[in-house]
Amino acid sequence: MTFTVGVIGGGQLARMMVPPAIALGLSIRVLAENEGSSADIAATAVGDYRNVEDVLRFARGVDVVTFDHEHVPQPVLRALVDAGVVVRPGPDALQFAQDKILMRRRLSELGMPVPVWAAVSSAEQLDAFIAENGGAAVVKTPRGGYDGKGVRVVRSGAEAADWFEAVGELLAEELVDFRRELAQSVARRPSGEIVAWPVVESVQRDGVCAEVIAPAPRSAGRLADVAESVAVAIAEGLDVTGVLAVEMFETTDDRLLINELAMRPHNSGHWTIEGSTTSQFEQHLRAVLDLPLGATGGREPWTVMVNVLGGPAGESLDARFVSAMAEHPMVKLHGYGKESRPGRKVGHVTVAGDDLDDLVYQARAAAAHLAD
Amino acid sequence: MTFTVGVIGGGQLARMMVPPAIALGLSIRVLAENEGSSADIAATAVGDYRNVEDVLRFARGVDVVTFDHEHVPQPVLRALVDAGVVVRPGPDALQFAQDKILMRRRLSELGMPVPVWAAVSSAEQLDAFIAENGGAAVVKTPRGGYDGKGVRVVRSGAEAADWFEAVGELLAEELVDFRRELAQSVARRPSGEIVAWPVVESVQRDGVCAEVIAPAPRSAGRLADVAESVAVAIAEGLDVTGVLAVEMFETTDDRLLINELAMRPHNSGHWTIEGSTTSQFEQHLRAVLDLPLGATGGREPWTVMVNVLGGPAGESLDARFVSAMAEHPMVKLHGYGKESRPGRKVGHVTVAGDDLDDLVYQARAAAAHLAD
Repeated sequence: MTFTVGVIGGGQLARMMVPPAIALGLSIRVLAENEGSSADIAATAVGDYRNVEDVLRFARGVDVVTFDHEHVPQPVLRALVDAGVVVRPGPDALQFAQDKILMRRRLSELGMPVPVWAAVSSAEQLDAFIAENGGAAVVKTPRGGYDGKGVRVVRSGAEAADWFEAVGELLAEELVDFRRELAQSVARRPSGEIVAWPVVESVQRDGVCAEVIAPAPRSAGRLADVAESVAVAIAEGLDVTGVLAVEMFETTDDRLLINELAMRPHNSGHWTIEGSTTSQFEQHLRAVLDLPLGATGGREPWTVMVNVLGGPAGESLDARFVSAMAEHPMVKLHGYGKESRPGRKVGHVTVAGDDLDDLVYQARAAAAHLAD
Repeated sequence: MTFTVGVIGGGQLARMMVPPAIALGLSIRVLAENEGSSADIAATAVGDYRNVEDVLRFARGVDVVTFDHEHVPQPVLRALVDAGVVVRPGPDALQFAQDKILMRRRLSELGMPVPVWAAVSSAEQLDAFIAENGGAAVVKTPRGGYDGKGVRVVRSGAEAADWFEAVGELLAEELVDFRRELAQSVARRPSGEIVAWPVVESVQRDGVCAEVIAPAPRSAGRLADVAESVAVAIAEGLDVTGVLAVEMFETTDDRLLINELAMRPHNSGHWTIEGSTTSQFEQHLRAVLDLPLGATGGREPWTVMVNVLGGPAGESLDARFVSAMAEHPMVKLHGYGKESRPGRKVGHVTVAGDDLDDLVYQARAAAAHLAD
């Protein structure tokens, strides 16, 4: 018998689960949206993750179903569970990653540190929230947002009028005055074992993760302890299995406030492939299979990851890899097998070592080669 | 355009080329001997590597053909080259990995340090060699041997009578008085760039590589320099492209003598997956595609690799993985997706860190869990 993991979604997160599955001798199958997906090498089916039949057919014979993304509708998830399929994370946990209002409500109930927030259903309600919170608000559509999509900073309710019309209820949050953004990943097994990687600093540009420094500079001690304890409490409180990434604000008055959650491997954890003893992708497979978890320490004092965003449409990464390889023999290059489009995440680079300034320089330079 | 590598042979070496191909965004295709091979996930064809038609069909559309093993017959290799296929390493290099007498002759011509040797065609010739070389000889069949097969220590020509009858000419070598065995891997591009990993100590049991310690203890300085310069000279002298592994004896009188060559990733280099900035599998892909090579330094002071040999027939590794994972969270486990048979290499474990004694203990203990 070989353990078999089924992954719904054929994006780069599914792709990056394949190497550790190969290493561990696990079998991995992917339900991709289309032919030629990023995770093509492991795609055993092409289908619609919103279609119960497609998903049930795919799930036959796998030991556990897990995810490349959090968009599988609740009815589909419930149908899987009803059919006896093991789904990790389960629907009860995933709903909090799917709906930001549910998430904020549940985290508030758990006493977790979140920004001031409200569910608002009209421009008037939003105006009232803005008036109470310093004259501005971050407004988010509860569902479907990612990489800065579905997020808007507003100074009046009217600026979200189109969203009220299209979506109905929105999440309003205080505009947090933050020093930097951090991300804390943990992995949790159904049997309860839970491990945490070092907290990292995540540099965002235009709402998209651009760079990650692991561990977050000047995080040793209280900051790391609080970040870890918050992520552990969320994983346990929401009964998350697999990897949970918690994006946080480090406020200018030295608090940590929870921004977003992801119940899967996350961009802020790509550094773990080379930078940690156990990568988030290996750990996710171990966790959803309820296997003992691996060590999560950093392998070098510092690891820096820089995303590669797509440049000119249609051009492949290959030619650019040559110059990046030639000039940066220490940097590890990752391509996602995706067609390049402006702003699209098509790869990332990672470099680990002792001298943070030098690593940041190298990683940025290598990524610039690839993105040119 | 995506670079596409075609690998002939579906064993664990092909399997371990897949993760770096995924990471780099390369396309990899494998010609496997049968369904369900170790490299199944990348197998795009099943066929006989001795059959010109099968191999030519497989090679269509790949940028370069390389190998999981060295057994592809010269006529098949020449047919590929004649058909315009890029083959790396090429037939002229591979012949020296395929025929130990050719290899000894060529290395002698190049002035490389080899044991005293002779090609012998009869028990009488072998008796004469034995008489001149201390009363014993190592006799090897020139072709087809691996993991101790095709190797015999004899004290009289009669002990090889069956092989003279079956094979004809044999390689006779002095029985080298050695302190330990070392292995030196290098990677070389067609354009000439060449890089070397640290020399390692390889502990053999029953003619099979059992453990590797990287770097070889007490090798800093002259030993490492000589090992590297020998392997570089062989790679250049034999026009090897891709990874070349040179197994050597460290003699009791402090010389290095060349034992065997492998023109592909090699068991003695598995430690590089976690232990070096660039693994031998990634480097082999880069080298055969004539891409710039990656850094080859060790990532930690020590890395220890222990092979997992199959135990009871038919039992899978999975159940044993659970206990190995639970007790050894720092150890990286590798399964080859092969059915377990006594003595068969079915996986390996690697652990890296500062304390060599502790690493050896951990790696052996984890491997013992898997092999039990």
